[in-house]
Amino acid sequence: SDNRSVAIVGGDGIGPEVTAEGRRVLALVAEKRSLPMKLVDGDYGVEAYEKRGRMWPEPTRVAMAEADAVLFGAIGGPAQPLPPEMHRTDSLLAVRRSLDVFVNLRPIKTAPALYEASSLKPRVLKGVDLIIVRELLGGIYFGEPRGVETLPGGERRGVNTHIYTSSQIQRIARFAFDIARTRKGRVCSVAKENVMEAGQLWREEVQAVHDNQYPDVELTHMLVDNCAMQLVRAPAQFDVLLTDNLFGDILSDSAAMVTGSLGMLPSASLGAVRADGRRGALYEPVHGSAPDIAGKGLANPIGSILSVAMMLRFSLGMPEEADLVERAVSDALEAGARTIDIAVGRTYVSTREMGDAVASEL
Amino acid sequence: SDNRSVAIVGGDGIGPEVTAEGRRVLALVAEKRSLPMKLVDGDYGVEAYEKRGRMWPEPTRVAMAEADAVLFGAIGGPAQPLPPEMHRTDSLLAVRRSLDVFVNLRPIKTAPALYEASSLKPRVLKGVDLIIVRELLGGIYFGEPRGVETLPGGERRGVNTHIYTSSQIQRIARFAFDIARTRKGRVCSVAKENVMEAGQLWREEVQAVHDNQYPDVELTHMLVDNCAMQLVRAPAQFDVLLTDNLFGDILSDSAAMVTGSLGMLPSASLGAVRADGRRGALYEPVHGSAPDIAGKGLANPIGSILSVAMMLRFSLGMPEEADLVERAVSDALEAGARTIDIAVGRTYVSTREMGDAVASEL
Ligand SMILES: CC(C)[C@H](C(=O)O)[C@@H](O)C(=O)O
Ligand SMILES: CC(C)[C@H](C(=O)O)[C@@H](O)C(=O)O
Repeated sequence: SDNRSVAIVGGDGIGPEVTAEGRRVLALVAEKRSLPMKLVDGDYGVEAYEKRGRMWPEPTRVAMAEADAVLFGAIGGPAQPLPPEMHRTDSLLAVRRSLDVFVNLRPIKTAPALYEASSLKPRVLKGVDLIIVRELLGGIYFGEPRGVETLPGGERRGVNTHIYTSSQIQRIARFAFDIARTRKGRVCSVAKENVMEAGQLWREEVQAVHDNQYPDVELTHMLVDNCAMQLVRAPAQFDVLLTDNLFGDILSDSAAMVTGSLGMLPSASLGAVRADGRRGALYEPVHGSAPDIAGKGLANPIGSILSVAMMLRFSLGMPEEADLVERAVSDALEAGARTIDIAVGRTYVSTREMGDAVASEL
Repeated sequence: SDNRSVAIVGGDGIGPEVTAEGRRVLALVAEKRSLPMKLVDGDYGVEAYEKRGRMWPEPTRVAMAEADAVLFGAIGGPAQPLPPEMHRTDSLLAVRRSLDVFVNLRPIKTAPALYEASSLKPRVLKGVDLIIVRELLGGIYFGEPRGVETLPGGERRGVNTHIYTSSQIQRIARFAFDIARTRKGRVCSVAKENVMEAGQLWREEVQAVHDNQYPDVELTHMLVDNCAMQLVRAPAQFDVLLTDNLFGDILSDSAAMVTGSLGMLPSASLGAVRADGRRGALYEPVHGSAPDIAGKGLANPIGSILSVAMMLRFSLGMPEEADLVERAVSDALEAGARTIDIAVGRTYVSTREMGDAVASEL
């Protein structure tokens, strides 16, 4: 049917506050376009665990599985005294795995309105428009063996395993090259191949996918340590950054200051298109649950609102509406709206007021 | 005897050029103080391999083992077509293991003279004076199993293993707490404990060493992704950053722009004090061999010269002379000497001239 459905899962900490603003923008766009859209709310996280004994309650699970896309907030209470098996079955990693979302897209773009908020100099910020394509279901996040064991004599040993297979690398590489074709046509693949054999495999497989299927795209390789520096030194050099799960996690935070604040950054996690034409699709701001500022109206909802724009583009087939939302965010910023994380002086607006500012530009 | 000996190993690329300036400063200090010091030169690296069939020739190995300290340049030719077993026995990782240097110290400090060269804003740079204490002999750099295997059906699988034992974590933690006591008394320990069980062990062991032996030091914990961002957002918040091998590699490059250029950064790699009172001690700039600019006199020798200062402090028992060298570097920068990596306009000096500028301030 034409009836699109979206599951809304705010989660813990500032998750619900920022997600409320993303939800509002989504509903507004649907209303303006007279598009029927079903929004189904579900609870999730440490609070859900405390109330219902599960972090990821069954009704939320069903809503997420049935929806065309999920708008997600954040996870993590002030303390996390959860039983270990809860982490295996109900954590954010379990959610990602269950939705089979193997790619995480993190676009990072500067706006002159935010040059002042950034810790980087304007000359460094000028023209930055990159996207991190992060593999999301492999590497050290999921590899076995893992755990802590006690050796005879009492010494303890902690182990985690980084693993990638050629097919895992190939599918994320194809994703990155496809995206590059819609952008500036350049992919930089990042690994630590001078130390890790799995990084050598990463590099070889990416190169082979390039040579066989995407010779028109420009491909370069960079060591992860150098890339962490280049993202601070000269981020405008990058178009598409292709990397693994752990390095993608670190590098997207390294690059966050380009926008003035982590609170600005959206993300989309996508799966392969299945036989029924559907795919797993999870949209969430890059920031975490920030329990210290939860409930105070201090959080920046732009990460969530821009995640909605990505959802309109990648899951709901509404690219023009995606542009519209992105433009509304730019306009609100140009007009001077600033949450505390991107405010330079003492004046700032609340989470809700930032949502108002964006909505009024729509 | 009172006769100190230092092995000088320039290595590949820009290694020899920058090491020549470090060597000169060291010789000058010894001469000024009328201290007998034996400097023994050795070759190492891809060039040595091409000439002698070994990256790490026996005479160099002996010179390094016998010396009180090693001044090292960089390793890596333009291409590295070396047989795999060479990497196991002769690579920089093999050198570190053979000298048993388990701690890598990377101090990062701003100088107002370099605010202009940095990609970060002056308000962010103000007051930054931190040191990264990086574990150097464990983690994914050395863990087994490792390698690439071909599965039945042709699929390949790359594996690397991250391992830490409690005693490895404890000894590096003690090192960090000891250093903190000589500084501002604050340690921030960095791991990825929300995803890696080995990171949970890291955190628990660091906390236990703190609680049992260093309650006077302030200890905080930070996730590696957040730390990568904080090093760009507000690096002045840190005193001692304690972390593992891989995260230390990435974070020190993330923080490099604080000084305007990777070329500014020194490092010291130290082992435990042995029964004979000696310890492994390897001093090297943080930058690599940069084959593209090798032999052109464009490299910044300050990373090597400041590594000599660390050697004077940690291996040669000459802390005043260490201060002297560091002051000479500051003075040369204040006086306007700039290699191309830290030059803002078009005027810059050569590697050799930067060495002259520092020497003339001594
Ligand atoms: C919360 C955590 C497991 C997660 C990750 O490491 O993937 C977060 O840092 C992220 O970047 O989405
Ligand atoms: C050359 C490489 C093996 C090395 C490392 O990763 O340790 C380098 O990046 C460093 O930081 O010293």
